Amino acid sequence: MDNASSTCLDERVMEAMEPYFFDKYAVATSEFGHSMGVESKEGLDGARKSIAENIGASPQEIVFTSGSAESSNLALKGVLSANDGHLIISDIEDFSVLHSARTLEKAGYDVSYLTVDDEGFIDPDDLKEEIRDDTVLVSIQHANQEIGTLQDIKKLAEICKDAGVFFHTDATHTFTRIPLDVNEIPADLITLSAHTIHGPKGIGALYLRDGINIKKQMDGGFQEFDKRGGLENIPGAVGFAKAVELVTKEENDRIKELRDRIIDRVLKEIPDTTLNGAREERIPQNANITFHYVEGESITLHMDMRGVAVSTGSACFSRSLEASHVIMGIGGDHERAHGSVRFSLGRYSTQDDVDYVVDNIKEVVERLREISPLGKE
Amino acid sequence: MDNASSTCLDERVMEAMEPYFFDKYAVATSEFGHSMGVESKEGLDGARKSIAENIGASPQEIVFTSGSAESSNLALKGVLSANDGHLIISDIEDFSVLHSARTLEKAGYDVSYLTVDDEGFIDPDDLKEEIRDDTVLVSIQHANQEIGTLQDIKKLAEICKDAGVFFHTDATHTFTRIPLDVNEIPADLITLSAHTIHGPKGIGALYLRDGINIKKQMDGGFQEFDKRGGLENIPGAVGFAKAVELVTKEENDRIKELRDRIIDRVLKEIPDTTLNGAREERIPQNANITFHYVEGESITLHMDMRGVAVSTGSACFSRSLEASHVIMGIGGDHERAHGSVRFSLGRYSTQDDVDYVVDNIKEVVERLREISPLGKE
Repeated sequence: MDNASSTCLDERVMEAMEPYFFDKYAVATSEFGHSMGVESKEGLDGARKSIAENIGASPQEIVFTSGSAESSNLALKGVLSANDGHLIISDIEDFSVLHSARTLEKAGYDVSYLTVDDEGFIDPDDLKEEIRDDTVLVSIQHANQEIGTLQDIKKLAEICKDAGVFFHTDATHTFTRIPLDVNEIPADLITLSAHTIHGPKGIGALYLRDGINIKKQMDGGFQEFDKRGGLENIPGAVGFAKAVELVTKEENDRIKELRDRIIDRVLKEIPDTTLNGAREERIPQNANITFHYVEGESITLHMDMRGVAVSTGSACFSRSLEASHVIMGIGGDHERAHGSVRFSLGRYSTQDDVDYVVDNIKEVVERLREISPLGKE
Repeated sequence: MDNASSTCLDERVMEAMEPYFFDKYAVATSEFGHSMGVESKEGLDGARKSIAENIGASPQEIVFTSGSAESSNLALKGVLSANDGHLIISDIEDFSVLHSARTLEKAGYDVSYLTVDDEGFIDPDDLKEEIRDDTVLVSIQHANQEIGTLQDIKKLAEICKDAGVFFHTDATHTFTRIPLDVNEIPADLITLSAHTIHGPKGIGALYLRDGINIKKQMDGGFQEFDKRGGLENIPGAVGFAKAVELVTKEENDRIKELRDRIIDRVLKEIPDTTLNGAREERIPQNANITFHYVEGESITLHMDMRGVAVSTGSACFSRSLEASHVIMGIGGDHERAHGSVRFSLGRYSTQDDVDYVVDNIKEVVERLREISPLGKE
């Protein structure tokens, strides 16, 4: 579930941002500028350093963007247009990667789509086989946006490193929830986001390993090491860094326990349910379950009347009633896709919340099944 | 000048944004989603409507972006890649337009650059002459980012309309300061920004007249009428709308008086000074003056020690010591460019501030000239 308190900004993030909205709101200028600009530049530099440190990177390897969509667009389009060649992605990527790949394909680039198994895993041998002499970039997400499955990106990144191919991973849903050190995992580009960890919307970053040549996608001034033009969103960057700092191992462990409680209780107490994604190798904050013979949309509506927000399909896709490409990608059919419900947990979720949700979804599903036209027989 | 209070966020903007950071922070979903998502979508729709109304547009003609750089990138690259042809811009455009045009040029598009006169004006006859059968888009700023000169965009847009060519204008520095109605001025695309009017950074918009075919530049979900993917920055959009609502004619008139006071006092009381840009047809919040025989950088530093922030060159360009392309564009030489100082006014500027600034810059310039190697002789 996804109630106000599980998705909102952390108050401490707001406190960290506030001075940069007021006293330190100037445009970040350089050593040649006035001291107000220097102060706000210090805020930006500090945020960059702190985010870099979290993944063992150097500050100059962090490029701030307007969010994970922009980061992934920059990664894929930036690398491919600077280094002509073949691209490989998985077929359950988030739309920012998937649709960037489609755009590149339409522009004449050759793109291969790796399929996943029924839990959402890429087979490393499939990746090895797909890499060609002209492959330039592989983009495989760290964890899936809907079903939460965690890829073994260390192994995947190493395959790419051995083959001399760049490796990008979309870590939107794992950043700080699953530790990642670029000195251990040879990823070359990583999409990072703030809004999934109680940070601000409208800010994200791309980790870009030193020495990688990419073509700037947002033209403007010479900001962000000349990798991304446009006025810096300094309050956003400062809030992002604060959000990163606030995530702890204890919190992640606690959220994981809540997730397990949802999964265990639902699978045990509600018949005809299927967990989507892996049981163990999944992000702590996500559970995704198909309730057979009912529509996810109906569950969403009924849970909403009981004060609980759950989602069906992709968060970006609610405007469409197409079946989720992720559930289809793990071998599900339309029925499984449409009956899937995603529960998202956060800092403010409690065991009482979880129990309330499970108790209620149990009732809702039972009633919906009584009236459902999608009979079992 | 540009002190903290003249550039910061308005407290009322922060108040308007706050609920969208906390209680209403959900992802904006559609009619199929949960009510938290619906509430945040209402915030987004309300912001869109209010910004649209300010320029006489319809809500579906407003596409939210991460700021004016992204808006101008989307306008130029979006139109050209969907409608192959020739592009015309002025040679004093902001970097987001100028560098987007350069990128398009490198990609094989034909681009013409219109020169301006010594006050920064485009000659409408030059535009007429430059338009060819294959011209697709003309992009000329509403006002200049450094010298503040206001173009007659009504006339320029009408020329384009008559010729069947799309007209884009970057209104970053004029939006709400200079009224603009799309029913009177036939502009097809307009870059709009929040941060210049005490609104948040990291948010902007592109007005896109109904029926114009552009190619999406930021791939992701189907947000923003499928014109711009990526999670919506709803607190930003709501803050943007609030900032727009807070600007009044009275405020603009008051700021204009302060601007005139700076220009009149400096030109009268400090010898060897030149106003850059037009005397009358300029935005209310900008004065740009060259102090001959001194470096703008030195003035900036000395004024900073006296608690006043002024800028030299373009705000986006302080990292470089290249001469401003705008001052060079109006026929200035390196000496004029390097001696130019930009004063920016805002809601919180007072007559006392202005007098303090003029009194101090007078002293600073006098002393610098005494020790300057750039002698008069």
